[in-house]
Amino acid sequence: MTYAAPIADMRFALEACADLWTLRERYPDLDAETLAAILESAGQLASETLAPINRSGDRAGVKLANDVVTAVPGFREAYEAFKAGGWQGLAADPAYGGQGLPRAVALAVMETVHSANMSFGLLPMLTLGAIEAIETHGAVDQKALYLEKLITGEWTGTMNLTEPQAGSDLGALTTKAAPQADGSYAITGQKIFITWGEHDLAPNIIHLVLARIEGAPAGSKGISMFIVPKFRDADGSRNAVRCIGLEEKMGIHASPTCTMAYEGATGWLIGEENRGLAAMFTMMNAARLNVGMEGVAVAEAAYQKALAYARERTQAGLIINHPDIRRMLMTMRSKIQAARAICYATAVAADNGDKAREDLLTPIAKAWSTDLGVEAASLGVQIHGGMGFVEEGGAAQFYRDARIAPIYEGTNGIQAIDLYGRKLLGDRGEAMRVLIEEGRDIAGSTHPKLNAAIDALAEATDYMLSASREDALAGAHAYLQLAGDVVGGMLLVKGGDRDANSDQAASLRFYARTVLARAPSRLAEIKIGADVLGDFAQ
Amino acid sequence: MTYAAPIADMRFALEACADLWTLRERYPDLDAETLAAILESAGQLASETLAPINRSGDRAGVKLANDVVTAVPGFREAYEAFKAGGWQGLAADPAYGGQGLPRAVALAVMETVHSANMSFGLLPMLTLGAIEAIETHGAVDQKALYLEKLITGEWTGTMNLTEPQAGSDLGALTTKAAPQADGSYAITGQKIFITWGEHDLAPNIIHLVLARIEGAPAGSKGISMFIVPKFRDADGSRNAVRCIGLEEKMGIHASPTCTMAYEGATGWLIGEENRGLAAMFTMMNAARLNVGMEGVAVAEAAYQKALAYARERTQAGLIINHPDIRRMLMTMRSKIQAARAICYATAVAADNGDKAREDLLTPIAKAWSTDLGVEAASLGVQIHGGMGFVEEGGAAQFYRDARIAPIYEGTNGIQAIDLYGRKLLGDRGEAMRVLIEEGRDIAGSTHPKLNAAIDALAEATDYMLSASREDALAGAHAYLQLAGDVVGGMLLVKGGDRDANSDQAASLRFYARTVLARAPSRLAEIKIGADVLGDFAQ
Repeated sequence: MTYAAPIADMRFALEACADLWTLRERYPDLDAETLAAILESAGQLASETLAPINRSGDRAGVKLANDVVTAVPGFREAYEAFKAGGWQGLAADPAYGGQGLPRAVALAVMETVHSANMSFGLLPMLTLGAIEAIETHGAVDQKALYLEKLITGEWTGTMNLTEPQAGSDLGALTTKAAPQADGSYAITGQKIFITWGEHDLAPNIIHLVLARIEGAPAGSKGISMFIVPKFRDADGSRNAVRCIGLEEKMGIHASPTCTMAYEGATGWLIGEENRGLAAMFTMMNAARLNVGMEGVAVAEAAYQKALAYARERTQAGLIINHPDIRRMLMTMRSKIQAARAICYATAVAADNGDKAREDLLTPIAKAWSTDLGVEAASLGVQIHGGMGFVEEGGAAQFYRDARIAPIYEGTNGIQAIDLYGRKLLGDRGEAMRVLIEEGRDIAGSTHPKLNAAIDALAEATDYMLSASREDALAGAHAYLQLAGDVVGGMLLVKGGDRDANSDQAASLRFYARTVLARAPSRLAEIKIGADVLGDFAQ
Repeated sequence: MTYAAPIADMRFALEACADLWTLRERYPDLDAETLAAILESAGQLASETLAPINRSGDRAGVKLANDVVTAVPGFREAYEAFKAGGWQGLAADPAYGGQGLPRAVALAVMETVHSANMSFGLLPMLTLGAIEAIETHGAVDQKALYLEKLITGEWTGTMNLTEPQAGSDLGALTTKAAPQADGSYAITGQKIFITWGEHDLAPNIIHLVLARIEGAPAGSKGISMFIVPKFRDADGSRNAVRCIGLEEKMGIHASPTCTMAYEGATGWLIGEENRGLAAMFTMMNAARLNVGMEGVAVAEAAYQKALAYARERTQAGLIINHPDIRRMLMTMRSKIQAARAICYATAVAADNGDKAREDLLTPIAKAWSTDLGVEAASLGVQIHGGMGFVEEGGAAQFYRDARIAPIYEGTNGIQAIDLYGRKLLGDRGEAMRVLIEEGRDIAGSTHPKLNAAIDALAEATDYMLSASREDALAGAHAYLQLAGDVVGGMLLVKGGDRDANSDQAASLRFYARTVLARAPSRLAEIKIGADVLGDFAQ
C-alpha cells in the first residue's frame, strides 16, 4: 500500500475545526465542491506521482558534480506534473498568474505533497517563500521580472540565511553587498544549509539572500535582503553564485542541501536597506507554518504505513488486535488530527487578516507539529517491529526525514522563545487571553478535560507574564507544548460538535484522556524555574 | 571530543543507588579498589579503542560476499584487545576461565562498551547469551566443549529465534530438527535478524537455535534448543549453516544482521526436549537487561556529545547558557542516571539471587531505558541544530542506532505485557508491593514528589490487578512507564541520601519536578480503558 490523501480528515480539519468558511466573503470563488476537487486532484498527484519516487529518491540521493546538482530519477517528471497542475500558484496573486485561493487551501495541498515526498515538497515550499517575499517587499519591476515565472513554477526560489558562524543568530552574518554603478550590488560570502539551492529542474533559480551593505550598522539592524538570480536578468548570463558542496544528511536525501558560494554575484536590493531581517521574517512566518505542516504530513504518512502493516502482520493474531498497537496508532491519529487543525487554523487566521492570531499560533503550529512528526515516525517504526529498523520496510525513512523539521526554520527551542518573548510579552498576553476565552466557549460545560487544560493554560500564561525572564525561558518549551495541547483539543472539540463522525469522536476521547490529561504536569514543568536547570559549567 | 566513561556516575549508580555492596559476602574478592580499576580499564578500552571506530564503522558497514561477512576496518584489532583484556568472561564461571565477578560489574563494563560502539558491543553481548545458556542448561560435555572457548572470546555465540513468519510469536516457528543415529539432529530452516550470525573475527561461531523436533507438539510447547557450531566439534568440518543475506538497516551498520540458512546442519540438543522456550527465556532475561543497558549507553554517548557541542557552539552567546539547551541536557542527564541505576539494580538483584526482584525489574530496565535511548538521542540531535541532521556531526548516528533497542529482545510493547501478565499477575502484585514499600521507606517524609508518585504506582498496581485483561493491556505501556519513573526516582533518592554530590542532587531535583510530577497523568493513561483505543477495523 502507498500513501492516500486523507481527504475526509483534511476537510474535517479545514471546514469544521479551522472554520474555513469564515473566508467565504473574502474568497467568493471557493465553495465546497471546488475545495473537494482541489484536494482530490492534489491527492492524486501525491499518491500517483510523488509517493512512488519517495523511497527510490531516498536511496539514490542527489549528487553534485562540476557545479551541477542532478535531481534523483523521477523528480523531473514529477516537477513537470506539479507545474502543469498549477499547484505552485494556488494562493498567489492572480495579477501574476496565481489563483488567489486562501493560503489554507494551498497549505492543505502542500500537506499531501509533503506526506508523499518530503524531499520533493521542499522545492515548491522554498519557491513559495520567494514568491511571498517578492509579493510583499518587491518593487513593481521586480514583481514583473520574477513573480510570474515563480508562480508558474518555471523558476524556483531559495532562502539564503544561514552562514557557518551564524545559524539561528542572523545578526552575526557577514556576507557583503557592495553597491555597483548600475544600482545592483556585488554579493560576496558563503551560505550553508540552502535547500534546493542548486538543481537541474528549472532553467533559473531565484535566491533571496541576506547580506550586509558596506558600512551598514553591526548586528541585526544592518542586514538587507537581495534578489540574486542564478542567471542574470539583463543578459541571461550565469551569475557568480554556485553550489560548492552538498551536506550528507540523515534524511531528505533527494533534497539538495547546498553550500552556496557568492563571489561578487549580481544582486538587487529588495525592500528597504537594512530592513532585511524584517522582510525575512515575513517570509519565515509562512515558511514556519509550512514546516509545521511537514511535521503533520510525515506523521500522517508514517501512520498510514503503520496502520496498513498492523492490519496484515500476524504475531499471535493480527497485531492490530493488540491493545498496545492500537494505543500507538491512536496516539498518532488523534495528535495528527489536532496538529492538522492547528496548522490549518493558523492559515485561516492569516487569510482572515487576523494577524494577532496568526502570530500567536505560528510558533505553536511549527513546534508542536514537528515534534509530533518525530514522535509519530518513531511510533511507526515501533509498530513495524524489526521491519521498522530495516530500510526496506519504509518506516525508517520517515523517522530519518522527520527529524529535520524540529530544527530548520528556527529550532523548536527558538519557537518557544518566540511564543514567550515576541508573542506573549509583545501584547502582554492579550491574543492568548482571547484564544483562551474562545476555548472556554468551545468547551462549555460538557468537556471537563478541556476545561481543566484551559485552566492550566490560563494559569501558565499568568505565570509566564509575571515570572523573571530566566524562569519563563526555563518553562517556555513546556508552555508551548501545553498551548499546543490545548489549542489542538479546542479545535477537535469544535470540529466534533459539528460532525459526530465516529473516527473523529474516538480521536477526541483518546486525546482528552492522554494529551489533555497531562496538563497539570505540563504546568509543573512550566513552573520549574531556571535554578533547577543545573550547572553545566566546564 | 570523544566518549569518556562516566566513572563517577557509574560508581554512584552501582554503589549508592543499586547497593552493590550487599554482594560483599557473595563476592569477597571484589572491593572498591578492584571495582575502580575494572571500570577505569574498561573505560580506557572504550574511549581509546572502540569509540574511534564507531563513526567509521557506521560509514563502512559490514559486507557479505561468497558466504563471508567481512567486519569493518578496526574491528579485528578491537576484538583482539577485548579478548586480551578478559572482558568476555568477567562474570563467567571460574571453572571455565571466567572471573566470577558479579553480573552488575560486567553490566557496567558493557555499558561503556555500548556507549563507545553499539555495533561492536553486540558481539560480546550475544556471546554472553550463549555462555549463560550453556552454563545453565548445557550437559557436562557441552560445557567442556564450548564454555572456555566462549568465555575467553576465542569463539563467539548467537541466538537464533526469529523466523520470517514468527517474530515475537515463537510458537509459530517451523525450523525442523531430525534425530540422527549419532544422537545429533539435522537442523533445517531459515532464521532472520541474527545479530553477528556470521563474521570473520573468530574461528568458530556457536549458534543457539530454536527448532522443532519431528513429531513435537504444535505451538510453544514443541520447541527445543540446539547448539549448532559453524564448524563441527568432531572433525572441525564446516557445518551446513550459512549467512545468505544481510539486512540493510537504519543503524548499527557495523553489526551484521544475518539471514541464516540451516540446511541439515548438525545440531545438539541443549536442555530438555520441548523445553527450548524456557531455556531461551533464561538467556533472554539477561539479554533484555543488556539491551536496556544499551539504551542507557547510547543516551550517555549522545549526552556527552551534545554537552561538548553546547559548550563550544556560539549562537547569541554559548548555547549552553540558553535555558532550553540546559533543559534538554538536564532531561538527558537526570533520566540517564535513573535508568542506569535501574539497570544496575536489576543486575544486583540477579547477583543476590533475588529472582522476584530481578524478574520484576527486567522488563522495566529494558523498556524504560531503551525508550530513553531514543529520546536522549533525539534531544542530542536537537541540541546540535542543523549539525545534528548532518551525518558528519555524529549525533545522527546515535539517533539511528538507538532506534533498534526498543524493538529487539522483545519489543517494548511485549515488555509491558510481560510486566503485567507474567510479573504482576504471576504473584498477584507481591513483588511490586515489596518494591513499593521499599520506596516508601526511601522517600520517608522528605520527598513529597516521590511519595506522590509511589501512591500513584500503588493505585495503578491495584487497578492493573483488578481490571479486565483488555483494560489492563490498554494501560500496560503507561504502567511500565510509571513503574520506571518511580523506581528511577527511588534509586536516585537512595543514592542521593548517601552522597550529596551536587550533580546528583541537581539531577534529582530536576527529575522530581519533571518525571515524577507526571505521575498523575500516567495514572490517567493507565486507566484509559480498552474502549478508548478506537476501532481500526478495515
